[in-house]
Amino acid sequence: MSSSQSAQINRRIVLAARPRGLPLPSDFRFEEVAVPAPGPGQVLIRHTHLGLAPAARLRMGEAASYAQPMALGDVVYGQAAGIVALSHHDGFAAGDAVVSMHNGWQTWSVVHGATLVKADTALAPLTWWLGVLGTSGMTAYVGLFDIGRPQPGQTVVVSAASGGVGSAAGQMAMIHGCRAVGVAGGATKCAHIVSDLGMDAGIDYRAADFAHQLAVACPDGVDVYFDNVGGSVRDTVWPLLNNHARVVVCGQIAEYNDARGGGPGWFTLLARRLMVQGFILSDRLERRADFLRDAGRWVAEGRLRMHEDLSHGLEQAVPAFIGMLQGHNFGKTLIEL
Amino acid sequence: MSSSQSAQINRRIVLAARPRGLPLPSDFRFEEVAVPAPGPGQVLIRHTHLGLAPAARLRMGEAASYAQPMALGDVVYGQAAGIVALSHHDGFAAGDAVVSMHNGWQTWSVVHGATLVKADTALAPLTWWLGVLGTSGMTAYVGLFDIGRPQPGQTVVVSAASGGVGSAAGQMAMIHGCRAVGVAGGATKCAHIVSDLGMDAGIDYRAADFAHQLAVACPDGVDVYFDNVGGSVRDTVWPLLNNHARVVVCGQIAEYNDARGGGPGWFTLLARRLMVQGFILSDRLERRADFLRDAGRWVAEGRLRMHEDLSHGLEQAVPAFIGMLQGHNFGKTLIEL
Repeated sequence: MSSSQSAQINRRIVLAARPRGLPLPSDFRFEEVAVPAPGPGQVLIRHTHLGLAPAARLRMGEAASYAQPMALGDVVYGQAAGIVALSHHDGFAAGDAVVSMHNGWQTWSVVHGATLVKADTALAPLTWWLGVLGTSGMTAYVGLFDIGRPQPGQTVVVSAASGGVGSAAGQMAMIHGCRAVGVAGGATKCAHIVSDLGMDAGIDYRAADFAHQLAVACPDGVDVYFDNVGGSVRDTVWPLLNNHARVVVCGQIAEYNDARGGGPGWFTLLARRLMVQGFILSDRLERRADFLRDAGRWVAEGRLRMHEDLSHGLEQAVPAFIGMLQGHNFGKTLIEL
Repeated sequence: MSSSQSAQINRRIVLAARPRGLPLPSDFRFEEVAVPAPGPGQVLIRHTHLGLAPAARLRMGEAASYAQPMALGDVVYGQAAGIVALSHHDGFAAGDAVVSMHNGWQTWSVVHGATLVKADTALAPLTWWLGVLGTSGMTAYVGLFDIGRPQPGQTVVVSAASGGVGSAAGQMAMIHGCRAVGVAGGATKCAHIVSDLGMDAGIDYRAADFAHQLAVACPDGVDVYFDNVGGSVRDTVWPLLNNHARVVVCGQIAEYNDARGGGPGWFTLLARRLMVQGFILSDRLERRADFLRDAGRWVAEGRLRMHEDLSHGLEQAVPAFIGMLQGHNFGKTLIEL
């Protein structure tokens, strides 16, 4: 098959069944369909990379309250980076490098130009536009600054701190002048958090004395907890929270696989006047220009970096996604197509 | 003993032991001491009424994080109303009716004039200045408007809705144009919530079909939950919360007796982007003038009322307090001295 022939086929992954707990490969189905043609204002993109995010797991459930659950048969929700193949939008031309939140797990997509961001590959590699300059970075930005609201000098704890969102949140806390303590699984990730990402400490939640290590790393208590995981890590941070601390509820991977899990008691919530708030990036897209301005500057200054967990080929999206939900990824989970 | 002789003795109740779970009478001790003399700027008050509040239970614990735990031997924390006997403060004169948050469970007190509020007994009976116009009313006011932030037309659920804080919060929600649903224990309180306080519904948490009744009373879901109790009532409200709902954590009576209780899972907190915040009135005293202006107007207009649960004699303070923590009070718990 020549390149021009293969370009006629869009390979995609759709939701075949709603996962119960940890997704199984059988919850997904591969399809091959014709590449769609863009309509007025739309742009056809040939994807080069997919950016996987745990939030997609939330959209696979059918909780009536959730903003936009996927329907069975929908292309799996996710962002992609790629090259414009054909544009019917004035803002884009063939050859432009772009990213979008609405591409899905497929090799081609048609999206409206208004939902696209042009990726400045002179500033950072295209893959970074799926990470620190994409939804992961923006999720960290709005969660940390709009909900966590740390003051310089305060202590910020971030869970899943070597992952896409967590690594960005921890670095942004450092940039803001906070003490940043990252929590991750295993010595390699914990070393990376300190050596490569520059956080003040990296604590291994698998260590037998995790609670003690975390307390030692937070001698002045915890003012902001950026929670990507829920479960036992959250319960270990909970007693360290200071009066008026803020808990940013960004991800609950520990609960995605078992939504029946309970939370910590509310006596502490009252006595310490805590604020706990869940958020979802799609409610806060009005902050995109602010995010791109600030994160772009931090990347240019070399203060905001990302580590890529790269797999090759669309067929790797499902195992990489399942592995990410189990904490097997190291850095931002990406699929190179 | 003549009146002038008895006036020389201050009878008071001090904390003898830190309660474990529900307080016992043996956790308290009666003392008789000389009535203290006011210093510069201070005022001597002969108490006519004590206003009991569940928050005192919090201060009986020793949680290091709590703002001002009582020490053993301290007069039990609480507000009182009374008459100025002797004033060394320009703002007050003998005979003035006053209330303060810092009087304690005793028959006399000396407090600084700056902490006193003059009670306008032409506007409302002196006891109301311990209820809807006192700390209960102000707690409802700042919790509802500063944390809950309901919009007119939204649904507000209040637990312990016939009690001091709950009855004020529910009435203020009605005044603000919300749908107000009160939760209380037993048919009498539930009828009172609707008939006397004007809320849209009163739901009995002891009913076998409580969850169903509550859901029926909230056909558009719940936008603000003003939580005075925690525990199973909170867990029943939890699944009814709308996207972006706010939970005002004002009291956790269900946990005061067993602080090990867990909270609801955080999956819903994330998926519905909830905001849960604990608060304590003493952090928010800057709102007093606003509260007195608004609540005074609502009382004058007959839109804000209170029901008194009145016991007679200082020795009744302990059993009344213990009964209140068990939900036996009906209205604001007051002790007439």
